[in-house]
Order: sequence, then C-alpha cells, then structure tokens
Amino acid sequence: MKREQLIAEIKKKRSYLCIGLDTDIARIPAHLHQAADPIFEFNRQIIDATYAHCVAYKPNTAFYEALGAKGWDSLCKTIEYIPKECLSIADAKRGDIGNTSSFYAKAFFETLKADAITVAPYMGEDSVKPFLEYKNHWTIVLALTSNSGSADFQTRSVGENELYLEVVKKCILWANTDQLMFVAGATKPELIKKIRQLAPDYFLLIPGIGAQGGHIDDVSDAAITPECGLLLNASRSIIYASQEKDFAKKAAEEAILIKKQMEKWLDKSMA
Amino acid sequence: MKREQLIAEIKKKRSYLCIGLDTDIARIPAHLHQAADPIFEFNRQIIDATYAHCVAYKPNTAFYEALGAKGWDSLCKTIEYIPKECLSIADAKRGDIGNTSSFYAKAFFETLKADAITVAPYMGEDSVKPFLEYKNHWTIVLALTSNSGSADFQTRSVGENELYLEVVKKCILWANTDQLMFVAGATKPELIKKIRQLAPDYFLLIPGIGAQGGHIDDVSDAAITPECGLLLNASRSIIYASQEKDFAKKAAEEAILIKKQMEKWLDKSMA
Repeated sequence: MKREQLIAEIKKKRSYLCIGLDTDIARIPAHLHQAADPIFEFNRQIIDATYAHCVAYKPNTAFYEALGAKGWDSLCKTIEYIPKECLSIADAKRGDIGNTSSFYAKAFFETLKADAITVAPYMGEDSVKPFLEYKNHWTIVLALTSNSGSADFQTRSVGENELYLEVVKKCILWANTDQLMFVAGATKPELIKKIRQLAPDYFLLIPGIGAQGGHIDDVSDAAITPECGLLLNASRSIIYASQEKDFAKKAAEEAILIKKQMEKWLDKSMA
Repeated sequence: MKREQLIAEIKKKRSYLCIGLDTDIARIPAHLHQAADPIFEFNRQIIDATYAHCVAYKPNTAFYEALGAKGWDSLCKTIEYIPKECLSIADAKRGDIGNTSSFYAKAFFETLKADAITVAPYMGEDSVKPFLEYKNHWTIVLALTSNSGSADFQTRSVGENELYLEVVKKCILWANTDQLMFVAGATKPELIKKIRQLAPDYFLLIPGIGAQGGHIDDVSDAAITPECGLLLNASRSIIYASQEKDFAKKAAEEAILIKKQMEKWLDKSMA
C-alpha cells in the first residue's frame, strides 16, 4: 500500500488505529477451539468486526511461531485475509547480515505477502537494506520501544544523541517516507517528540496504547502531522475485550472508542 | 546440553566447529529436488556426513521462513534430527517486549526443541530474560556481528565503552556461563579480544569463518580459553563445498580441514 493510499484511508475512516493480532491460543474464547484453525478463526472474526474502524493490522510472529508450522500457516491465512484497504504489518523484528536479511525480506514480502515488516536495527545498514529493495512495501525500523528494557541501550548517549535518535538519523539516509517508518513506543511521548523533530514526515508506528499504559492524547499531541503520520497500535485491550462469544463485538466497541478519540486529533491536524 | 557436556564433546571430538545450516533451496544439488522435503533431505545428509567432526549445528531461520509453513516444518525436522551429542542452535535473532519474548522462548525451546537460540539485544533486559528462564537451554546474545553494518551502531561509543561491550557488561549481570553465550563476529579478532576480557569464561559463538573471510587462527588466538570457550561457525564454505551428488562427502572434507586447524589450538590451550 502506497503512502498516499494510507493517508486517504486514514481520512476516509477517520482513524489511525492499528490492531495488534497477538493471538494467544490460551486466551481465545473456548468455543473457538472446535474450529479447524482456532487462531485463524479468532482473527477472521476480529477482522470482520473491526476493519471499518482501523487502517492496519499487526500480527506479531511470536504468537504464531509458538505453535510451530501450524502457527505459521495460521499467520499466512491471517495476512491473506486482511482487507486490501488495510496495511498488513508482520511484527517480526527481524534483521541479519545482508545475505540472510534478503531471505527474511523474501519470506515476509513474497511468501507471506505482508505489506510491511518491523526490523531490528542493531546489525546496521546491510541488515536493513534488503527489505528496502522492495519498493512497494514498508520497512518499519525499531527506534524506541515501549518496554522497560528500552532504557538499557536505546536511550544511552552515543555521541551527541541517544542511540534511538542515531538509529533514526542513519535510517533516513537509507530510504524516504514512501517506504520507511519507525517504531516509537507510546509510553514515552517526550521522546517521541524528539523522533518527530528528526523525521518530520515519516510515519511512526506507535505500540503500547492500552494494556501497556500509553495514552492516545499524549502521543497524538507529541507527533501528529498534517498528513497524520501516525499508526497507533493496541493489541490486548481490543482483541481480549471479552473472552466470551461476544468477543468480536466487544473488540469492535473498543476500536470505536479509540477511533472517537482519534477523530478529534484528525479534525485538528489534517487539512 | 549442559556446559560440562559441551566441553567434554569438544575434547572428545577435538573440534569446536559449528556448522551453519543456511540451506537455500536454490543452491542444493538438483537431484534432491525429487525428495518429499528437499531441504530436510539436504540437511540430513550433511548432518550424517559431518556430525563426527563438529559439536553444534546452527540453522538460520531466514532460509526456512522464506519457504513459509513448509519451511518451518523442514526446520522442525532438522532440529529433531541433530544428534543429541551436538548443540542445536536456532539462529533466529529474536527479541521483543517481555510478554512477547516469552512466546518466542516457548516457540524455540518447547515447540521446536532447540538447545539454543540467538537473541538481539536492542530491546534490553525484559526482551532477553524470558529466554533465560529456560535453565537447561542457551541464550546467545548478539554482541558484535560479522557484517559491515556492525559499524553503524555496535562499535559506537556509549559512555566509556563501545555499544557491543556495553551489551556484554549488562548481559553478564543477567545470567551465568551455564546458559548465556555471546555472538562475536570472526571478521574482527581485535574486538573479540575485548569481549573475552569482559567475559573471560563465557562461550562465544563466532560466525564469519569461510565465506565471510574470518580466519580460524586469528579468532582462536584472540579468544580460546582452557575450557575452549569457542564455537566457530562456518556455513556456506561447508554445505556448498560441492553442488553435485558428492555434496555431503565434500562437506565432510571441508569440516575435517577446519577440525585439523582446531586440534592444534585445543592441544595448546586445553588442559
């Protein structure tokens, strides 16, 4: 999905919500266990109920890999099922030496056919570039993550800047705003502001809304742009809003609540 | 596999070779394409021919994921086939927020039943700790990688030390030598020495021998200990030694050549 189309979808749906499909077999409603593929069945119903209220879905590969080859199959079906109007983001945090990263790029962009993948920056330029060779796809580099461990290395000073800002500074030399985004954790709005200053026109994927404690207003205030420039991700607070048969309906209600908050920011910021 | 057992295997086999099973469907001999699972069949024959000369195998997940669910299945079969006397290392470079990393730990240590996994440090302590909860398994943290991109962030100064040394300093506070190793790229023996100074008793997994240009003598000289403390990985130079029907035999010949060089270092260093 191209940048213009993503922005158009945000305007049309009045939402910059991304729903994290972190689907844990132990937390899905009991009645779904009768389905041939319970994980996919859960995701399918969540997607059907919510796609009008969000612009992206982000399955995290960990939850699927925990189930082995069968889980990988559920992931494939899920990516395929995501409506074309929504961005499909494989939250995989991959990265390896250049030759090997090119196999990851193939795995996620060709075999799995995701629109976007999250990538870890630790191994530097040749680990990121193979993803950028796919011009019609998005590479979303981890800059600042939402967890406590982000203080161990990401916010340490490297010369003038902190490491997460050095990551942003380097990466914007490698790709433009049409195919590169950054992950910036919702739990640190003051630091998101610094990323926005360095990368004024890049989209930021912001996880950590909801269960992890980040606030929509705080991060929108810190980084929304006239083209929106944000994808805010919520996972557990939406997909596990209920563990009963009404789980999809309750997920949609949660998504709508978030979208209502977002409408206000879009009215204020977008032309 | 416990540390004592690994050291005993190194002594017995007179080798600290790890063979990287970076099996690319486009590079395996043509006659194997008739097999039900060509990737597994290639790996099986490589393992049969080489296990007497090495102490570990390291399949890199990228090559398997490029083939989707089918590739994941080949990976499972490969890990299962690796003889118990050899360490099975899933080269996955995973890492995510704590809750998610625990699913990766489950995926690799319970579902896939690998002995060890490589982990990326960028997201800090809570991204690494879920792997360390598996006491009888190994967590191998990326410190210094063998690629050119390692200069982008890893060798930048963070306070007194370079980032890769800060990673080592932090991680040795989280786990002892029974369950933690570090990745240190063979292409930079002078920097491997600095890791060895900070972590004198930890095993180092050293990729980059062979196709990537690292030299066995240089890295052994830099970091071998009285308990060896090294696993040197070669991938392409061994598994693609021939692309004909004799590929497994040629792989064994390459492995033996490397082992011969290692014997000299073991005789000099181990009690």
